[in-house]
Amino acid sequence: MKAVLFEKIGSLKLGDVSRPDLETEKDALVRVTNTAICGTDLHILNGNIPVEENTILGHEAVGVVEKTGSDVKRVKIGDRVVLSCTVQCGQCTNCKKGLVALCKHGGIFGCGKQRGGFPGTQAEYIRVPFADMVLEPIPDDLTEEQVILVGDILSTGYMASENGSILPGDIVVIFGAGPVGLCTIATARLFGPSLIVSVDLLDYRLEAAKHLGADMIINSRKTDILEEIKRITDGRGADVTIEAVGSAETLNYCIESVRGGGNISIVGVFPPGMVEISMKKMLIRNIQIRMGLVNMVNMGRLMSRIKHRKLDLRPLMTHKMSLGEVRDAYRIFGSRSENVLKVVLHP
Amino acid sequence: MKAVLFEKIGSLKLGDVSRPDLETEKDALVRVTNTAICGTDLHILNGNIPVEENTILGHEAVGVVEKTGSDVKRVKIGDRVVLSCTVQCGQCTNCKKGLVALCKHGGIFGCGKQRGGFPGTQAEYIRVPFADMVLEPIPDDLTEEQVILVGDILSTGYMASENGSILPGDIVVIFGAGPVGLCTIATARLFGPSLIVSVDLLDYRLEAAKHLGADMIINSRKTDILEEIKRITDGRGADVTIEAVGSAETLNYCIESVRGGGNISIVGVFPPGMVEISMKKMLIRNIQIRMGLVNMVNMGRLMSRIKHRKLDLRPLMTHKMSLGEVRDAYRIFGSRSENVLKVVLHP
Amino acid sequence: MKAVLFEKIGSLKLGDVSRPDLETEKDALVRVTNTAICGTDLHILNGNIPVEENTILGHEAVGVVEKTGSDVKRVKIGDRVVLSCTVQCGQCTNCKKGLVALCKHGGIFGCGKQRGGFPGTQAEYIRVPFADMVLEPIPDDLTEEQVILVGDILSTGYMASENGSILPGDIVVIFGAGPVGLCTIATARLFGPSLIVSVDLLDYRLEAAKHLGADMIINSRKTDILEEIKRITDGRGADVTIEAVGSAETLNYCIESVRGGGNISIVGVFPPGMVEISMKKMLIRNIQIRMGLVNMVNMGRLMSRIKHRKLDLRPLMTHKMSLGEVRDAYRIFGSRSENVLKVVLHP
Amino acid sequence: MKAVLFEKIGSLKLGDVSRPDLETEKDALVRVTNTAICGTDLHILNGNIPVEENTILGHEAVGVVEKTGSDVKRVKIGDRVVLSCTVQCGQCTNCKKGLVALCKHGGIFGCGKQRGGFPGTQAEYIRVPFADMVLEPIPDDLTEEQVILVGDILSTGYMASENGSILPGDIVVIFGAGPVGLCTIATARLFGPSLIVSVDLLDYRLEAAKHLGADMIINSRKTDILEEIKRITDGRGADVTIEAVGSAETLNYCIESVRGGGNISIVGVFPPGMVEISMKKMLIRNIQIRMGLVNMVNMGRLMSRIKHRKLDLRPLMTHKMSLGEVRDAYRIFGSRSENVLKVVLHP
Repeated sequence: MKAVLFEKIGSLKLGDVSRPDLETEKDALVRVTNTAICGTDLHILNGNIPVEENTILGHEAVGVVEKTGSDVKRVKIGDRVVLSCTVQCGQCTNCKKGLVALCKHGGIFGCGKQRGGFPGTQAEYIRVPFADMVLEPIPDDLTEEQVILVGDILSTGYMASENGSILPGDIVVIFGAGPVGLCTIATARLFGPSLIVSVDLLDYRLEAAKHLGADMIINSRKTDILEEIKRITDGRGADVTIEAVGSAETLNYCIESVRGGGNISIVGVFPPGMVEISMKKMLIRNIQIRMGLVNMVNMGRLMSRIKHRKLDLRPLMTHKMSLGEVRDAYRIFGSRSENVLKVVLHP
Repeated sequence: MKAVLFEKIGSLKLGDVSRPDLETEKDALVRVTNTAICGTDLHILNGNIPVEENTILGHEAVGVVEKTGSDVKRVKIGDRVVLSCTVQCGQCTNCKKGLVALCKHGGIFGCGKQRGGFPGTQAEYIRVPFADMVLEPIPDDLTEEQVILVGDILSTGYMASENGSILPGDIVVIFGAGPVGLCTIATARLFGPSLIVSVDLLDYRLEAAKHLGADMIINSRKTDILEEIKRITDGRGADVTIEAVGSAETLNYCIESVRGGGNISIVGVFPPGMVEISMKKMLIRNIQIRMGLVNMVNMGRLMSRIKHRKLDLRPLMTHKMSLGEVRDAYRIFGSRSENVLKVVLHP
Repeated sequence: MKAVLFEKIGSLKLGDVSRPDLETEKDALVRVTNTAICGTDLHILNGNIPVEENTILGHEAVGVVEKTGSDVKRVKIGDRVVLSCTVQCGQCTNCKKGLVALCKHGGIFGCGKQRGGFPGTQAEYIRVPFADMVLEPIPDDLTEEQVILVGDILSTGYMASENGSILPGDIVVIFGAGPVGLCTIATARLFGPSLIVSVDLLDYRLEAAKHLGADMIINSRKTDILEEIKRITDGRGADVTIEAVGSAETLNYCIESVRGGGNISIVGVFPPGMVEISMKKMLIRNIQIRMGLVNMVNMGRLMSRIKHRKLDLRPLMTHKMSLGEVRDAYRIFGSRSENVLKVVLHP
Repeated sequence: MKAVLFEKIGSLKLGDVSRPDLETEKDALVRVTNTAICGTDLHILNGNIPVEENTILGHEAVGVVEKTGSDVKRVKIGDRVVLSCTVQCGQCTNCKKGLVALCKHGGIFGCGKQRGGFPGTQAEYIRVPFADMVLEPIPDDLTEEQVILVGDILSTGYMASENGSILPGDIVVIFGAGPVGLCTIATARLFGPSLIVSVDLLDYRLEAAKHLGADMIINSRKTDILEEIKRITDGRGADVTIEAVGSAETLNYCIESVRGGGNISIVGVFPPGMVEISMKKMLIRNIQIRMGLVNMVNMGRLMSRIKHRKLDLRPLMTHKMSLGEVRDAYRIFGSRSENVLKVVLHP
């Protein structure tokens, strides 16, 4: 079958590999119908996340179940499904505590041996381990386009909102309006804030932020952010600030602009080194910080929200291309050209 | 000054009483500009809540500060304010724990000596004890009509929603679409449920429920409620059920229609006697129940929500009358005629 | 093999049945070394919980793993293990939410077809479905006697304490000092209350309550409970009251003796009919009630507590008998004679 | 009257100042009977916290009420009281939210104009603003020695434990066994952990840690901390780590030694500059961090705990001296000589 393969840093190709099959009775085989490109894929391509040559990339996908092991109960052949980006067993000590992101037999699709060695979704077929945990059936009345993000960045954005402990009436500032930031905006709305402020450097992303639910947008190239937030909040600071970039600069913005007693939620992916922050400023204002890898336990809850028309991520689907156009697809996504937000590939 | 006085069971009058003045340095004197009639006032009139003859009725009001004691800091002469229906000191052991509803020096305006003996708001002027705790300034850009319910039933509805611990994506069933039920619907929306179902016996109230945010309405005279909820939830039961009536029948509906692991919130005012419920049914399904008198600590938060156009209770204001028309006003409100929801009186 | 079989209401026998074997790759076969009698077994014997003739009874046990299916990962042949009283799959929608008590493929050992139809533990061998979820390995330095209650009533008592949301410094009143009540006392201590008050009718149980951590004991035959609690709490009421009996009378005691803003936790097993309670009294005091079947997710946490000598339930093990003496064992346990608390049977 | 006055960096004196009197009707005048020296006082003496010349130092004290304003309700002349180290009004927007540490009319006793300008407790008399909020009566059966720490470091240690969200059965590592670290150990016990590990550089402090409830002590000069914690936790990491030192090194220990999904609580006082931490390590393990100034709302709760003999801080009272010996007292406390933990001064 055709699959997107990592060659070396900076280079990938569409190659031919053998079609996978079931390996345990808990596996399912899924025919991929649509798969997306994620920021993590770019980190792999750039060498920030090291993977082995010929690793099949990708971890965001929807498809149709082709075959199931005898222990698979929740899905059956022919079901349309969305895949969780992470693999989890549901039974190890971490899974039992609800920490499925830290599953002892799990990992992430398409991210190399250090992260479990599970081949990725940018291919015609994929073997899905622990299928009852990893696959979520798609309700009949929803399209693939509506739900493809449920398996990764929508769940991630939802976690970011949850970690902020947003209460009705709060003022929430979200730094970063990339795909994860936009999903955070869309889900933050569900918690009833008075005002969602989106901050980014790119105007087209801020436009998308508006469509997804931001009440106010700020281009940080053109405005003194801290002064502006002070103005909006009558000098108090925001109730919740969310970091969806992954840089020391925005993290310190989050610290400086949150009110005393407020919450900071971090969802941006930080580089490996040390980050300089001001503990003193946080201490004297009683701040709570939460962060982490997404626990893929809310797929059903999010699907229900989409079904009842309270959540619509379709504005993110700016580019639809075939698997054969994968190199162009990565180039567009990586260069943020053509006002790209998400690129979906169909095998 | 003119004031609405309780005469005897079934009878009230507009009488002349002496204008109040400050009694302590923490008091404020407020000129009442608008005051509403509440279900509790009917309970008083009907004798269910006993009060003394010539008690001034009423506990929902907005007005203008006329005079302040030297210890009053948060409001000043000329400020437009909304009154909390309850009086609280902020410093007793209960207030310090956040249980201001159980303040040791507090009570409710216009509800007689057993409830603190504070004269009511259906009058031209009112003395407000602990003014810094009881009064909330109205932002310049909001009208009195937008905020008059903040001081009682909107805060009560918000507590009912909070007590339900509603999560984004939940299915919520609210029994009762009277004024408190409608405020519960409007605030439940802030917590991001997938579906709000409103249940009542009167079609005009169900229509109002729709305007305030119910996604689905059910007239329980015409439909088998339990069957219908089973159908809507694919047999699982609702995530949250809220009792806003105050009867054993609706409470048992709440118990029967909530899912295992779900929450019941009770805000309806129950009569004094015993109520028969099925403990067994609750036990085997791990249910949490919460209830209580409203803690008036969210007025600012709700005001902010109204200001940012996320909450609009104006559809409830069906009747505006003068204080002189008080007898007609109580008759209309009590008989649920003329599609009444709330009656506002201006002195 | 030998097994305790239900004959008809009021009668059981030690019979011979065929030894079970693995049925799926997730099963384990366990040789039972010790198994206890629980109040639920008496309810079955008395006909309150209907089961089929020849049902093998029992759901509290420790043993040694004899055989495992190929999918069993957490335990291996020869391991000493404690069994969870409930069976849970870990992967259905309820399990994923942490509601393992409501598992769609689960039930309770030895409680008949309505509760899953899993044969009980009062036998020489038992087949354990979903072994990775149901079995917990026993640390080397702990004896079977120390951990046998972890699989049922210790977890249940812990849930009762958790549901009370006990905070350090609280005054907690626990009604009922039967085995579940005693486990509640022992675990309530872990949450740091100032004072645990145990209430019961039997002096020998109150003596045991003292050994397990009650700071004060009250025999409700000899004392006016409500007056006494008022006295202890300077008129305020208890912060937390826990019902571990299952009667309307003690439930209403819980309601009357809890303070405003306090919590009620219900763990007693109630009969099927209706129970009369005073909603009014609860409403005016802002009370939270929680209850439910035990979620068996804390076995590891409790085992760790025992290992570090913070929890010791051995005082409950008053009677040790052989499986052959089962009729005497049930008689003693059922009649509360010989100062019995728990009876352990060894096959 | 006599009072301890700040002269210049490195120098203080016992001087004569005029005796204070009531300034508002909410004030009380307290005759100080015992007052302690705190680490913060050393920071002032060393110039880290700048104060004005002749500032009266100190913020930990017990005493007797000599005079009260007409608005003071909770205490009366002759009452023995403990003082909250912070001043709070109870009525500003922050106080209403429970954030009394950020009171708009508040501050800290004896810490100079930037922190409210309230004269300190190391004197014969002190004026106490908002006396109903700041003073807590001492129960008759408790000595001053038992409760003097309730007003500052015991409340601080309790907050540190609360911020760690310790659950029964957890393994908790507390870095730092100075007075605040020791109070954290004593209060952490109230939450029922399996194991409390105390880490410090000084053996005599580790000995005190043992007396106050640490199950295990580690001298970080002699042991590789991270290896040791790995060993104790079977490689998983601690459930909760608490920073009670205020240095980048111990904060990074907290990050490295907490398990995935665990909590970090920070109570150590950090210097003003930037601190380098590893975000990456926290992100991939889903960690929560909480920190802050103490909210003085638990004095009653802690007093009750002491009364019921569940908390005893008397082992910290190593030195009792007269106010006249204040220079020696600061020298001993500052140099950590004579195995000093706390020094109490009596005027």
